[in-house]
Amino acid sequence: MTIVGEGDLALVINLRDEKRYLVKLQAGGALHTHRGIIPHEECIGQPWGRIVRTQLNAPFMVLEPSTADLIKHIKRNTQILFPKDIGYILLKLSVRPGRLIVEAGTGSGGMTLALALATAPLGRVVSYEVRPEMQALAIKNMQKHGIAEGIVEFKLRDIAEGFDEIQADALFLDVPQPWDYLPQVAACLRSGGLFATIIPTMNQAIPTIAGLEAASFGLIEMEELLLRHYKAVSTRVRPADRMVAHTAYLVFARKMEKNSPPTEQTSPTANYI
Amino acid sequence: MTIVGEGDLALVINLRDEKRYLVKLQAGGALHTHRGIIPHEECIGQPWGRIVRTQLNAPFMVLEPSTADLIKHIKRNTQILFPKDIGYILLKLSVRPGRLIVEAGTGSGGMTLALALATAPLGRVVSYEVRPEMQALAIKNMQKHGIAEGIVEFKLRDIAEGFDEIQADALFLDVPQPWDYLPQVAACLRSGGLFATIIPTMNQAIPTIAGLEAASFGLIEMEELLLRHYKAVSTRVRPADRMVAHTAYLVFARKMEKNSPPTEQTSPTANYI
Amino acid sequence: MTIVGEGDLALVINLRDEKRYLVKLQAGGALHTHRGIIPHEECIGQPWGRIVRTQLNAPFMVLEPSTADLIKHIKRNTQILFPKDIGYILLKLSVRPGRLIVEAGTGSGGMTLALALATAPLGRVVSYEVRPEMQALAIKNMQKHGIAEGIVEFKLRDIAEGFDEIQADALFLDVPQPWDYLPQVAACLRSGGLFATIIPTMNQAIPTIAGLEAASFGLIEMEELLLRHYKAVSTRVRPADRMVAHTAYLVFARKMEKNSPPTEQTSPTANYI
Amino acid sequence: MTIVGEGDLALVINLRDEKRYLVKLQAGGALHTHRGIIPHEECIGQPWGRIVRTQLNAPFMVLEPSTADLIKHIKRNTQILFPKDIGYILLKLSVRPGRLIVEAGTGSGGMTLALALATAPLGRVVSYEVRPEMQALAIKNMQKHGIAEGIVEFKLRDIAEGFDEIQADALFLDVPQPWDYLPQVAACLRSGGLFATIIPTMNQAIPTIAGLEAASFGLIEMEELLLRHYKAVSTRVRPADRMVAHTAYLVFARKMEKNSPPTEQTSPTANYI
Repeated sequence: MTIVGEGDLALVINLRDEKRYLVKLQAGGALHTHRGIIPHEECIGQPWGRIVRTQLNAPFMVLEPSTADLIKHIKRNTQILFPKDIGYILLKLSVRPGRLIVEAGTGSGGMTLALALATAPLGRVVSYEVRPEMQALAIKNMQKHGIAEGIVEFKLRDIAEGFDEIQADALFLDVPQPWDYLPQVAACLRSGGLFATIIPTMNQAIPTIAGLEAASFGLIEMEELLLRHYKAVSTRVRPADRMVAHTAYLVFARKMEKNSPPTEQTSPTANYI
Repeated sequence: MTIVGEGDLALVINLRDEKRYLVKLQAGGALHTHRGIIPHEECIGQPWGRIVRTQLNAPFMVLEPSTADLIKHIKRNTQILFPKDIGYILLKLSVRPGRLIVEAGTGSGGMTLALALATAPLGRVVSYEVRPEMQALAIKNMQKHGIAEGIVEFKLRDIAEGFDEIQADALFLDVPQPWDYLPQVAACLRSGGLFATIIPTMNQAIPTIAGLEAASFGLIEMEELLLRHYKAVSTRVRPADRMVAHTAYLVFARKMEKNSPPTEQTSPTANYI
Repeated sequence: MTIVGEGDLALVINLRDEKRYLVKLQAGGALHTHRGIIPHEECIGQPWGRIVRTQLNAPFMVLEPSTADLIKHIKRNTQILFPKDIGYILLKLSVRPGRLIVEAGTGSGGMTLALALATAPLGRVVSYEVRPEMQALAIKNMQKHGIAEGIVEFKLRDIAEGFDEIQADALFLDVPQPWDYLPQVAACLRSGGLFATIIPTMNQAIPTIAGLEAASFGLIEMEELLLRHYKAVSTRVRPADRMVAHTAYLVFARKMEKNSPPTEQTSPTANYI
Repeated sequence: MTIVGEGDLALVINLRDEKRYLVKLQAGGALHTHRGIIPHEECIGQPWGRIVRTQLNAPFMVLEPSTADLIKHIKRNTQILFPKDIGYILLKLSVRPGRLIVEAGTGSGGMTLALALATAPLGRVVSYEVRPEMQALAIKNMQKHGIAEGIVEFKLRDIAEGFDEIQADALFLDVPQPWDYLPQVAACLRSGGLFATIIPTMNQAIPTIAGLEAASFGLIEMEELLLRHYKAVSTRVRPADRMVAHTAYLVFARKMEKNSPPTEQTSPTANYI
C-alpha cells in the first residue's frame, strides 16, 4: 500500500485551494484539473503522499483516499450520508466482521460501501432498493471501488413486502417514512437486534418515535451530530465561517423479545413496555 | 448471537430511569441494582432483548452491548474517548481489516478496543504506553472483552524513543504534547499514511498545527464533533436539556513523501510545502 | 454608580469556586455563605468591584449585577428564559424606549424585567397572566428590583378572552399552545407588528408554524441559540465540559395587513399569502 | 408607527425567495428589484405589513426593519457583528438608558447603532476609531438611521493614547489585539465596570485572557453563541442545511478595585487575585 498501483483510486488535491479529485488511475489516462493536466503515469509506481505538478506547475498531493474520503466522493443523486453520521452508526449498530446487516434503501450506496468495508471479509450485507436506476448506480459505485464482491447482496424490492432475512444482527433504514415498515423490520431482526434510521425533518421524527413506541421497540434514542471544521493554519486557528448545520436526525432502537414474561405476575407495572 | 450465553457481556438497563449496568454473566452470579437483584441465571439461556424483573418487580432490559456501549462503559481512569469521536476517526484513518495501526498512549484502552474490533480478524494494532499501571488496566479491559488476542500488541515505552514499526498505515496519538513526537510519527508511517491526534485545549491546538506545518505533513485538518441527544418520547420530542459540550479537538494529517521532486524545475512556488 | 449604596442589589461571588449570591444590601444585614459570613456593612459605602473576606478569610467579589445576571438570578418557579434568548428577542422585536410591548404569560417575570429595562423611561409594557400566584411572584420580583413602576402594567386574564391593547408594536407569547391565540395576537398588534414566541418541543413547533401560516402572518422564522461557555484560564483555554443544550425554539413572525390589495388584478399568484 | 412615512427606512422582502432590500423611502423614488420595480409611492402613506407588487406582478412585503434587521443590513467594509452577539453583549454590559458606554473601534458602526438605540434617550455613547474612512462610514450609517444625534460622540484617535472618559459604566473593544489596551481600559472604567471584547481566533483568545488575568480583572468569562436557523414550513420543519459556524469568541470581565484591602491581614490567599 506504499506504492500507487494501476487501477488504484487516488485522491488528488490542489495544494493551493484544496480542490479535490477522486480518480481511478489507468495507464494512458490523464486528470484534467482547473490548473492543468496530470498524466496518470506521474502517479503510478510512485509512493503515496507525493507532490506532482501539472504542466502549468500547479502542485497537487496524491493521496490514498480514506474511508471517509470514499464516502464523501461517491457519485450520488440522492440525499447525502456523511462520514460523521456513518462512523457513529457503525459503532451504534456494532457493524463488524461476521455480522449480518440489512439495509434499505440502497440509494447511491454510500452506506452500503461503509457497511461492506466494516464487515469484510467475514460479514454479509444485504441491501434493498425499490428504484432500479438507484440500485444500478449503487452497484456501479461499489464495482468502482472493487470491494463489494462476496460481501454485499443487492435486492430490488419494495420492503413493504418484507425482508427475506431473519435473525439479522442489525438493520439500517433510510426511507422517507420509516414508521411504515416497522413490522417488517421486527420480523427481520433477531431478538435484541440493533435498529437505526435517519430522517431529516421534525415531521418525520415524531411518527418514527411513536411507531417504535407502539411496536414495543426498546431503548429508543434520538441524536444528531454536528461537525465543525476549523481553519487549521497555526497563526490564526479558528472555526470555519460556515458549516453544514443539518444532515439528519439519527434514531436508534432495539428489538425486544415479544411476550417477554414478567418474573412476577400481577404488577401494575407489568404493561410498562 | 440470539441467545445469551454464560460469559457474555450484557448491558442491563432499568426501564424506568435508563440506568445501565455492564455485566459479565456467570452461573451463580447476581446483579445488585438500586432497584433489587437479578440473578444471572434469569438472563443466561434466554433470548437477548428480554425483560427481566428484580425481586422488587422492577423491569430491566437485557441487551447485547453495542460497540458504542462497550466504549462508553470501559473501566477507565483517564480522559474519555467518546463513540462519536472514535467512529469518525476510524473512517478518517481507514481503520479496517488488514491494516497496521499504531497507537500511543494506550490509556484505558477504549480506542484500542475500537481499533481491534475494526481491524479483526486480519489486522494488526500496536499500542504504546509509558505508564505501567495504565497498560495493565487496558490489558485487563481487553481481556474482559476477549477480543484483543492475536490483534493487539501492547508495548511499554516512552515514544520519545521512537516506534518499532515502519510503514504503518495509520497512527493515532493521544498524548498531552503531540508536537513533541512528530519526527517519530513520520518515521513510523508509510508515505501517504494517515495521522490523527486529539487535544482538549486551544493551547495545545496551536502548537500541534504549527508542528505539523513545520514537519511538512499534508492535508492538515482540525474538526470537532458535537453530539446532541433528544428526548425520544413521541408526545414531546425535544433536545435534552444538557449535553457534553466538549470532548476534544480532532486533528488529522497525511505524511507526505520527503523531497517530493518537482515536475518542473525553477518555480517560485516550488517551496510551497 | 461607583459606590455601593444601601438597598442596592449586589452580586457576591466566591473567588474560589465562582458560587454566586444575589443580595439586597441592608444596614445590619449579613450574607451567610458556605465559606463564612459577610456583614452587608463591609460592602455598603465601598466601591463596586472590591474584594471582601468572610471571617474565615474566604475572598468574595462584590459586583453590580448586569442585566444578564438579574435575569438569571430571578426567583422563579417556571421554565427558564435565558439571557442569550432574551437579548436576541429584544433586537428581533425592536424593544426600545417609546414602544408598546405586550407579553403573555408573565411567568416569573424574567422577560418582563428585560422588557421594562429596555423600554424605560418612555415605553409601556403590558404583561398578562392567568395564574394569580405566578403574577404575584412576578410583581414581587419586579418590586425587588425597583424598576417596573410606571413602565409595566400587570393584568390577570386568560388571553383567550383577548388583549385590551390594539396597535401594539410587538407581542411576546410564552404559553404552552401559542397557536390557540393567534386571532387575539393579530387583533392586538398593529399592522406590520412584530411577534415572537418560544416553545421547547418539536410537537409544539409544527402547529405553531402551521397556525402562523394559516393566519397569514408573514416572514415566519424559527431559530435557536446555543451558548457555549469556555474555561477562561489562559494556560488551558477550552470549551466547558458540559453545556445547556436546549432552552427553546424561537419563532418570529410579522402581522401582515389584511386584504392587502394586489397592485394588479388577475394573477394566479394573487393568493400567495 | 402604523403608517409608512416619507423618509422611513423600509425592509422590502420578495415573498417568493425572501430576498431583502433596505430602502429609505422618498417621494419619486423607486426600488429596482430582480423581479421588477416598486415605486416608493406604493409604500408611503400605506400601513406597514402590506403586500405590494412590481409591474411584473411579483409580490413583496413592506416591513418596518427591526433592530436586528438594521444591524444586519448596515453598510460595512469590516468584519460583521451579528444580532445574536450584540443582543447578548447588551445584556452582559447592562447597556440601558442613562449609562455611559465607551466603544473602540467604531468600525462600520453596527455596534454603535445598537448601543445608541439601547441607551437613548438618556444615555451617552462614545465611540473611538483610528481610521478616518471607517469613522466617516459609521457616521454616514448613523445619519441614515437618524438616531445618533445627541447620543453618540465619535472620536478619531488611537486608543493607545488612552480614552478621555473616566468612570465609564461599560467598555466594548473590537480591535485586533485587545490585550494591548488593557491599562487604558482600566483607566476608563469605573470600579466594578463591565468589559467585553470579541476576537475571532484562538491565537487571540489566549493572550486576551492572559492579559485580563495579569491586569487583575475579575469574573473573566469566554463564551460563544451559535445561531441555528430552521426551515419554517409546517409540513417539513427542519434545521437549515447550512449555517454561520463562527462569528467571534466573546470575552467578558469586570474591573476590580485596585489594592482591594483584605479584611484580615496575613493570609496565604491574600494574593489570590
